[in-house]
Amino acid sequence: MKVFVRNVARTKCLPISQLQLRSFATASESSRIPKINADRFHKTLHETCEKYGAAHRYGQRSDETGMARLTLNDDDIAVRKWLEKEMEKVGCTLKVDSMGNMFFIRPGSKANKALPVAMGSHLDTQPMGGRYDGILGIMAAVEAMRTMHDHNVQTNGPIALINWTNEEGARFSKSMCGSSVWSGQLSEEEAHSLIDVHDKKTTMGQELERSGYLGKMKAHHTAMPLAAHFELHIEQGPILERANGKVGVVQGGQAYKWIQVTINGRECHTGSTPFEDRADAMQSAAKIIVMSKKYARKQGGLASTGLLSVFPSSVNTCPGKVTFTLDVRHKNDASLEAILFEIEREAERICKEESERGTKMDWKISFASTAVKFNANCHSAIQQAAERYVKPEEIMPIISGAGHDSCAASIRCPTAMIFVPSKNGLSHHPEEYTSPEDCAIGAQVLMDSVLTYDQQHV
Amino acid sequence: MKVFVRNVARTKCLPISQLQLRSFATASESSRIPKINADRFHKTLHETCEKYGAAHRYGQRSDETGMARLTLNDDDIAVRKWLEKEMEKVGCTLKVDSMGNMFFIRPGSKANKALPVAMGSHLDTQPMGGRYDGILGIMAAVEAMRTMHDHNVQTNGPIALINWTNEEGARFSKSMCGSSVWSGQLSEEEAHSLIDVHDKKTTMGQELERSGYLGKMKAHHTAMPLAAHFELHIEQGPILERANGKVGVVQGGQAYKWIQVTINGRECHTGSTPFEDRADAMQSAAKIIVMSKKYARKQGGLASTGLLSVFPSSVNTCPGKVTFTLDVRHKNDASLEAILFEIEREAERICKEESERGTKMDWKISFASTAVKFNANCHSAIQQAAERYVKPEEIMPIISGAGHDSCAASIRCPTAMIFVPSKNGLSHHPEEYTSPEDCAIGAQVLMDSVLTYDQQHV
Repeated sequence: MKVFVRNVARTKCLPISQLQLRSFATASESSRIPKINADRFHKTLHETCEKYGAAHRYGQRSDETGMARLTLNDDDIAVRKWLEKEMEKVGCTLKVDSMGNMFFIRPGSKANKALPVAMGSHLDTQPMGGRYDGILGIMAAVEAMRTMHDHNVQTNGPIALINWTNEEGARFSKSMCGSSVWSGQLSEEEAHSLIDVHDKKTTMGQELERSGYLGKMKAHHTAMPLAAHFELHIEQGPILERANGKVGVVQGGQAYKWIQVTINGRECHTGSTPFEDRADAMQSAAKIIVMSKKYARKQGGLASTGLLSVFPSSVNTCPGKVTFTLDVRHKNDASLEAILFEIEREAERICKEESERGTKMDWKISFASTAVKFNANCHSAIQQAAERYVKPEEIMPIISGAGHDSCAASIRCPTAMIFVPSKNGLSHHPEEYTSPEDCAIGAQVLMDSVLTYDQQHV
Repeated sequence: MKVFVRNVARTKCLPISQLQLRSFATASESSRIPKINADRFHKTLHETCEKYGAAHRYGQRSDETGMARLTLNDDDIAVRKWLEKEMEKVGCTLKVDSMGNMFFIRPGSKANKALPVAMGSHLDTQPMGGRYDGILGIMAAVEAMRTMHDHNVQTNGPIALINWTNEEGARFSKSMCGSSVWSGQLSEEEAHSLIDVHDKKTTMGQELERSGYLGKMKAHHTAMPLAAHFELHIEQGPILERANGKVGVVQGGQAYKWIQVTINGRECHTGSTPFEDRADAMQSAAKIIVMSKKYARKQGGLASTGLLSVFPSSVNTCPGKVTFTLDVRHKNDASLEAILFEIEREAERICKEESERGTKMDWKISFASTAVKFNANCHSAIQQAAERYVKPEEIMPIISGAGHDSCAASIRCPTAMIFVPSKNGLSHHPEEYTSPEDCAIGAQVLMDSVLTYDQQHV
């Protein structure tokens, strides 16, 4: 490999104690590649979780909690302020756009014309979230910036760390929200007018203003173009763990759609209304939920219901109205459309034929994300980087089940993601867990990938 | 028939305009039986609805709204105050017990020893309720009291009008609440500590105190014994209407139980968790809801789900926990138990075998009401009364699908109910409707039944 690390201050190398990274690089390569400080990284990850949004304790150890750091709540604001301070210490400058997306830029050696190679992810979490989803990607990027600073690494182009706003869509119901405005897939106006799901009086625009993160720069890829976007993330599924994989080279993301389904029936008394006189919205909803899974499974996709509301809510009244969500996914767009077509048609039939007096369905697509293919040059950089630290059989191509900021980024710049294993495939859960060793491998591969890409393509 | 109406002030007879009651009594009988004032009754019914809790407008006419008069809310308090005033005008005295049950007593001609024959029902409604469920029974009793007063009717024993507290169980989750404390089936302590479903900080005891309806008399059948209990109610089902029936002589009530079902699974990401790694509480819940109806139907019973909550609530998280209610009914106790046994066993199987990683079910009975058989003497009084106003083929024996205060009353005194038709069988719905003519027949039959019973058994 090329010598892309210059002026390495070898005396600054920090101990990596228990969290030793294996190295499959040659001795000469190895000596030139800065190693991240896995101890510092581990400590930073958990200390910031503890201070900014820890919740849902499940064990005695200090790191045995989940997270509830919802977009632009006080904990999210506080961790953003912490990030500003830390990035200033390592010589980064900050640009904030009108979506609160934060771009920390470390200058490169080339003059102004080179675009930054970015390491992006998100600091917000689900209300019952864990310590790794999103946070790992940012904290690994923090460690990469610190390591580059410690070792005085000089890159061709600038390197960016990006904290994308509201990736989860848990507080303001659009996931990949900040990155989608940047990519031009979502209008700033629509994003700003999103309403807090727990407080109907508050919009995202108001919270951006209150937090001080309503930046003056337009949230758009033309205002802040990138050379490439890399993201380290936990897999959130069981595939790597099962296959004893260590690094997933993410090929792309599943296509998916969210559907808001409303079933209108007729409320009636549970005791005095024979079945033949009912238009029971709950029965229709339950049948559609069961059926949607069956149809998705048949075609190798996924279908899930995460939200359901009943109206009116009374134990002895059959609901006149039930609303629920369907989250349907498949790795390719055409198959997703085929599944959705079948589910919708069958749902219509259930409402018409299986409810005695007939319920009515309203089917509204609230979010759509086409299948994403990541960039071959980015894959190559990740593959080269990963091969330095893990065995070839521990590196796996993988498809992302979830949506990520990288999916939005990928339509505007070369993009790829790195996955590390999730214990029991658990995610969106307080107990989601990735071992310190796996986190460290991920962070090292992230930094190496970015440096490799910078050397090869900037 | 016996002359049980004395000193009839015939000159006071009021015009019954369009709402003419048919009479099948002989001319000589007819002249002695006071007729209710159907116009006044109709007006009172709708004016009090309009003033105290009208909601959910569905048409242009002033009476085209439903009701949201929840137990002990400000509208319920206001209509109770109105009732006090009106009953004072017709010479009734009021006793309030420690459940806020209101007993308006019109004295009889016998000395103190005779117990009152009561006309009872309830003034509270469902949150999305109509103008007839409960309200009709009270307003018909008001009209009966007014008519007896107008005609100076003298009865053997006292006649009571009872407004039972919290029949619906919609605000404080125990239906037939006040009457069940009176009958000794529910402890006063438990009833007072019931929590407002919309405001976890408020108990029923606090609301009784705030409203001024925490009476000093113990809520118990021994403190306020009754000779008999009659209740006029809308059928809340389609049977009378379909059979062109006018008066249902209610033989008894179905047995029923309410079950609080909790499904514990494991939350996981909807996009990255293959089906085989899921313990999806929503899928298990939906299957149980669909199955419960199938099993109940097979055995001639009913099963319904009126409440369902999902935790956490996030479109891209499979719920780790779902709670819902089952309301299961059958006209006899043994069949109800058989249905419940089957549903519970099958639900356990669904959780164990049909959820990939296995969900767990918690099954808790929150309310139980055994089948009720009403009293033959009461039936006879209703039958005799009904035959004076409608054709024999318009009088039908019927089973009540819903629970009623009369079910609680029936375990402590001779009891029966009178049903009048519900348009389209609709109830627990703003548009529940019974025609003015059918309401008037019901009120007339209610008064006549009570007077007949008083003559024959007191």
